[in-house]
Amino acid sequence: MTPQGTSLIGQQAITGDQATIRAIDPATGEALAPEYPGLDRSAVAQACQLAEDAFATYRESSLDDRAAFLEAIATEIEALGDALIERAMAETGLPRARLEGERGRTCGQLRLFASVVRAGEWLDVRIDPALPEREPMPRVDLRQRHVALGPVAVFGASNFPLAFSVAGGDTASALAAGCPVVVKAHSAHPGTSELVGRAVQAAVAQCGLPEGVFSVLFGSGKEIGQALVANPHIQAVGFTGSRGGGLALMATAQNRPQPIPVYAEMSSINPVFLLPEALQARGEAIAEAFIGSLNMGAGQFCTNPGLVIAVKGEALDAFLAAAGEAVKDSAAQTMLTPGIHGAYQDGVGALAANSKVREIARGPAGKGPHQCQSALFATRGADFLADEALQAEVFGASGLVVECADAEEMQRVAAALEGQLTATLQMDDGDLEAARTLLPVLERKAGRVLANGWPTGVEVCHAMVHGGPFPATSDSRTTSVGSAAIFRFLRPVCYQNLPQGLLPEALQDNNPLDVSRLVDGKRE
Amino acid sequence: MTPQGTSLIGQQAITGDQATIRAIDPATGEALAPEYPGLDRSAVAQACQLAEDAFATYRESSLDDRAAFLEAIATEIEALGDALIERAMAETGLPRARLEGERGRTCGQLRLFASVVRAGEWLDVRIDPALPEREPMPRVDLRQRHVALGPVAVFGASNFPLAFSVAGGDTASALAAGCPVVVKAHSAHPGTSELVGRAVQAAVAQCGLPEGVFSVLFGSGKEIGQALVANPHIQAVGFTGSRGGGLALMATAQNRPQPIPVYAEMSSINPVFLLPEALQARGEAIAEAFIGSLNMGAGQFCTNPGLVIAVKGEALDAFLAAAGEAVKDSAAQTMLTPGIHGAYQDGVGALAANSKVREIARGPAGKGPHQCQSALFATRGADFLADEALQAEVFGASGLVVECADAEEMQRVAAALEGQLTATLQMDDGDLEAARTLLPVLERKAGRVLANGWPTGVEVCHAMVHGGPFPATSDSRTTSVGSAAIFRFLRPVCYQNLPQGLLPEALQDNNPLDVSRLVDGKRE
Repeated sequence: MTPQGTSLIGQQAITGDQATIRAIDPATGEALAPEYPGLDRSAVAQACQLAEDAFATYRESSLDDRAAFLEAIATEIEALGDALIERAMAETGLPRARLEGERGRTCGQLRLFASVVRAGEWLDVRIDPALPEREPMPRVDLRQRHVALGPVAVFGASNFPLAFSVAGGDTASALAAGCPVVVKAHSAHPGTSELVGRAVQAAVAQCGLPEGVFSVLFGSGKEIGQALVANPHIQAVGFTGSRGGGLALMATAQNRPQPIPVYAEMSSINPVFLLPEALQARGEAIAEAFIGSLNMGAGQFCTNPGLVIAVKGEALDAFLAAAGEAVKDSAAQTMLTPGIHGAYQDGVGALAANSKVREIARGPAGKGPHQCQSALFATRGADFLADEALQAEVFGASGLVVECADAEEMQRVAAALEGQLTATLQMDDGDLEAARTLLPVLERKAGRVLANGWPTGVEVCHAMVHGGPFPATSDSRTTSVGSAAIFRFLRPVCYQNLPQGLLPEALQDNNPLDVSRLVDGKRE
Repeated sequence: MTPQGTSLIGQQAITGDQATIRAIDPATGEALAPEYPGLDRSAVAQACQLAEDAFATYRESSLDDRAAFLEAIATEIEALGDALIERAMAETGLPRARLEGERGRTCGQLRLFASVVRAGEWLDVRIDPALPEREPMPRVDLRQRHVALGPVAVFGASNFPLAFSVAGGDTASALAAGCPVVVKAHSAHPGTSELVGRAVQAAVAQCGLPEGVFSVLFGSGKEIGQALVANPHIQAVGFTGSRGGGLALMATAQNRPQPIPVYAEMSSINPVFLLPEALQARGEAIAEAFIGSLNMGAGQFCTNPGLVIAVKGEALDAFLAAAGEAVKDSAAQTMLTPGIHGAYQDGVGALAANSKVREIARGPAGKGPHQCQSALFATRGADFLADEALQAEVFGASGLVVECADAEEMQRVAAALEGQLTATLQMDDGDLEAARTLLPVLERKAGRVLANGWPTGVEVCHAMVHGGPFPATSDSRTTSVGSAAIFRFLRPVCYQNLPQGLLPEALQDNNPLDVSRLVDGKRE
């Protein structure tokens, strides 16, 4: 299959008539065919109406049917074969192995959500049986389950053209919850988006679902994206991108006549704390692993470790020297888009121009047009504390090391951090007390706390939290990766005294779905 | 104990120096002693700083200690004895039996949350053990628990001076989650608020907790309330009150440098659908029960059934006649405040003046100054659909009956409703199909769906949902009554590869807290 340059609204392929989007191969700067004429607002309204029409049926699809649909999407994506990988390589500059891995992750994620749907934990079934004899008042029969919120708008991310785009984590979890999805495709990888969109479209048809369960739209983010979030049928939004983009969607969602939740994953510099014993014992090994994580995917991960914090001294000097050498050995890598490369250059330039920051090393310049030259900087703890600008995310392979005067200053730096997706401790046995002192601060700052690992590489599982306090995300109560992501698109409904014949299956006495239930507060 | 006219900041009693608040006995119109001089913004900052200081200790208090604290609050409230009931009667005009019942509910709620804390379901423990042999990549050890959000601001409600005020559901669930609470007391019942606040204060001291775990502030809502929500230490807000008040707090919370969640329970007219067989078989009995629910507490419940929907015909005429007679037999009741009474008069006046609305009956006028005269109106389905103003909540014992042309129009009326706390079906066996048609619409409109009951009377249990789509609440994903209310004040944190000695108890291998866990996606 080759991309046709069309949006997909339900089972239709639609060619817009607004300003045209074309992918650019960042490795060459060349525009790629086909053109994607943008849609207008009426097409957004049409997709949302179809989603609303599909909702009544889809939200009550059986657990097996819904799980089979998610599995069919995975199969259809795999069936796209190498055409998908090649198109994604051309549109993103990412290497084949990374994109093949990401495809595996995307399909694995869809299959995980299929198993989540079947297991039914997400229904959160609670039953408080009637107590007709209770004094002074009898208790009526009360039962609770979770239901789907309604149609969901998903914004594809630039940096995960498969795993956080058209059929990525937001889409998979929303579909798992029973919500139709309208995707605003990211303009940087339209061909990849269309191919994946057609795979989902085929799965919808194959599973006999109402067509409005899924649409994917191309067009201007400000125009089409805002219209999508403002559409009255849309009941929640999933977004991964810049802080500015996320804040704009949050404002639109909040200013609707009916405000809706926005799950925006925005920015994080993912602090790494080098505790003294670990730094002393294995500083150089940590330095190499750090630069390995920093360079991964040209640093274009939300979980890229952009900040290292340690107490100054000989061990930290040795760490800096080793890290600097590793940076100098780092080959330049093509970035996702000319815009991202430009922003990276600006961010690195601002650090270089800051009088309180010293440059430790730069990687070799690249030969292509949009290549990321790795960079490492250092600053003093006091200067970091005095300048909020040093917390700004530089999206790409740039790191800043904060040299603290002592452990107390390190604690103050931790306390001064904005909300983060992750916080990491590099620690040895002798660092346990220091880690205990930092942990309560880090728990308040981050959605995930790691020991002796690196934040890049986010496992898709049940215990994962890919989230965190603002501005890392718009809603710290949630995760966008892992099975708990489904709860973003659900709400509880209580049924009081309903006859068995009217109760949803999940709540019937004989538990036909065989799901875990909280009965009178006790887990069954 | 008698009220002293002071705010309570931590263990201190503080007398403000701003404009004074005095309770008014609504039954007589007389002002009650003592005066409550309002606080200024610096006092708000002080209470929030104390809460922040207390948070580090309190959020990690043991499950038993925290549960014992909640139980101690209940005991201390009971120890206030009749002084509390008498003060609340004077400040609210509510009868003794109602307030004694509400005290029982308040203390029962605190004890329920004690049991919820001990059971540990709220921790939502998830463990995905390391898979070192997994191909192509090993899996690291990942564990998740919920942690407290931080200090919480609670706004006391006018209509539940005990159960949704200083130590009501919001406070109990926030404290259960591990969040210190700063209460902005409702100005209509300051003496009741101070007495309950002193009971909580005593429990804090008795349990040896840091004093900042609890404060209660008196002052201007616009000044003190907005300053509280804007304070950077506050991490969530619980509010029960008007739509205007809730929207103002939502805007403040959203415009902070760090936006925070607001759980505002605002307005609901709680539609009741009379299905044909039930209406035919027992219309008069339903009419009497309806007016009984409508009049309960002078109609001053969030769940008051303000809207009845049925298909026109002889059975509905008989229902209206019976309901009208019951209204005429309804004694006038003192309302909570002069302001609430004034708003009720305005709301009833607007209905009476609407040319598409006809008055069915009014109850007898009262003799006191602020008495609610029950009222019943009717309108046609087409007129209801054409005029959004007919959906406005009239807080008090006023009901509107919508006479639909047929079942199809009844369905359209259901679909046109705003978000509600509850929706009720009056149905007999023969109405099952009609109920099945309505149910999917009602599930999207309301947090709780009832059959053959009345929405007033909200059980405090595990399956309860006291919530619902906007504008019933600001966040349909939550409930403010029942044990699930605790989740409003929690967020998940994932721990990757932490040594056992650093892991929180809830996540340690040997499960020392003996809590339910999801291990590799399976419930243990």
